[in-house]
Amino acid sequence: MKIIDGKTVAKKKKTLIAEEVNRLSQSGYRSPHLVAVLVGDDPASLTYVNFKVKDCEEVGFQSTFTHLKTQTSENELLEVIDDLNRDPGVDGFIVQLPLPDHIDEQKIIESISPDKDVDGFTPVSMGRMIQGLPSFLPATPYGIIQLLSEYEVETEGKSCVIIGRSNIVGTPLSILLSRKTNPGNCTVTLCHSRTGNLAEITQQADILVAALGSPRFLTGDMVKNGAVVIDVGTTRVPSEKTKSGWKLSGDVDFESVAPKCSLISPVPGGVGPMTRIALLQNTLSAFKNKHGVS
Amino acid sequence: MKIIDGKTVAKKKKTLIAEEVNRLSQSGYRSPHLVAVLVGDDPASLTYVNFKVKDCEEVGFQSTFTHLKTQTSENELLEVIDDLNRDPGVDGFIVQLPLPDHIDEQKIIESISPDKDVDGFTPVSMGRMIQGLPSFLPATPYGIIQLLSEYEVETEGKSCVIIGRSNIVGTPLSILLSRKTNPGNCTVTLCHSRTGNLAEITQQADILVAALGSPRFLTGDMVKNGAVVIDVGTTRVPSEKTKSGWKLSGDVDFESVAPKCSLISPVPGGVGPMTRIALLQNTLSAFKNKHGVS
Repeated sequence: MKIIDGKTVAKKKKTLIAEEVNRLSQSGYRSPHLVAVLVGDDPASLTYVNFKVKDCEEVGFQSTFTHLKTQTSENELLEVIDDLNRDPGVDGFIVQLPLPDHIDEQKIIESISPDKDVDGFTPVSMGRMIQGLPSFLPATPYGIIQLLSEYEVETEGKSCVIIGRSNIVGTPLSILLSRKTNPGNCTVTLCHSRTGNLAEITQQADILVAALGSPRFLTGDMVKNGAVVIDVGTTRVPSEKTKSGWKLSGDVDFESVAPKCSLISPVPGGVGPMTRIALLQNTLSAFKNKHGVS
Repeated sequence: MKIIDGKTVAKKKKTLIAEEVNRLSQSGYRSPHLVAVLVGDDPASLTYVNFKVKDCEEVGFQSTFTHLKTQTSENELLEVIDDLNRDPGVDGFIVQLPLPDHIDEQKIIESISPDKDVDGFTPVSMGRMIQGLPSFLPATPYGIIQLLSEYEVETEGKSCVIIGRSNIVGTPLSILLSRKTNPGNCTVTLCHSRTGNLAEITQQADILVAALGSPRFLTGDMVKNGAVVIDVGTTRVPSEKTKSGWKLSGDVDFESVAPKCSLISPVPGGVGPMTRIALLQNTLSAFKNKHGVS
């Protein structure tokens, strides 16, 4: 059994991005520029946005943190987005979710210009992904695809079972892994809360992705010997061992599952670090698309 | 074993549309208006477009057949589409595929305004479908969903296996049947040319959809007793019994599969007639969206 080291892979990818930014700068280009928009003061959201800004700095991107008051109206936010859509100095931007209740989240997402949609959340990005066209992939599926590639997991013709059908993880990943690409060409089964005989299905999986958000849900008896298991869960659970009083728990019961796996991604340190890289990669792509750099 | 009578269901749906057009007209609205654009003289495409125009007439829609020369340039076609996008008298339009080789099909599809995309082929329509938002569904998946509903097939928690991952049938259907709706809530497995142990997988399906375009591919030994089988295949095969010298063959070997099914859709007369209705339904929806009629 081998453990996926998402931290090291992410670090390697980050170095590659920094090197590319450096090359671009030597060719006379300005730095790629990401804008992060946050409405309100949700502490978790603040932490995420700060991480994103810090990541940008580390690879040599320009970044702007647009922090708006909780009371910002939907129209005001739409105006901010309209400005970002038009600003030639902005390559990509994200609107940190969740938004306050008085703002229609879907309306906001759909107002983002598809060529700056580095979160990959707009219908256009999703639709282009379905159709196998170049698009900005949502961070978590993108990160998982890259981990499978990095660890040279054979996917073609393999049975892949995904637990959880969310719009930003399970569903897009199911599409990506079904496509005629590498990684891809899997026979994918998408499971969810209404799936009856779940254990029976997961026991047949060569590649098993747990993305339902239920701590330690997947146990050893549900896993085939030799399976590759990817844990997407990141639930905060109380812990006496940490200063904060909590720790991250995955959807996989590592102790019982790991011994049966050929490869497993832990939480923390598996998929998580890769999701932060995806945003940088999408921003770099947006920059290159705009400037016609290949 | 019961046979799905797509013709009768389609006729019923058509009557409902005609009645609604009638009601709208009595309330002072103009008729919904569909435009079909064809480039060139491909005989099969001509037949399809003529069917679509005829369907429109039968339900009281206005229809326009815009027939362009094979030599039409990509730019000329883009201009035609631009005009249709802007024309307030046009509710929806389709560009009949395939297009001549000198025209970039994807570019043309992406130029269609999402609110007039009654074929449901643009990335925006696909993306909205993934996200569970109201959207124009592609004709074949939409037709299948309606047949399942009409025949009161219980889908929740059922195992559904789809053979074929095309962008307009298999993939969108896999998404629709996974969604938290009714019909929906299935555990869907999407199979394709790279799937290894296909028979093993199909034998477990409560609902089995053959959409690979290979005549009589699915045989009785691949089907579980009591399964619901939907045949999407429409391949022309030589026949001595018809005047034309050919007949339509489905992807299902009806003779060996039907006896094992609880419900089966034949070819012809199953899914086919419903796909023609979907275009009318989408056009009516486009009309109602535009005029704010619920």
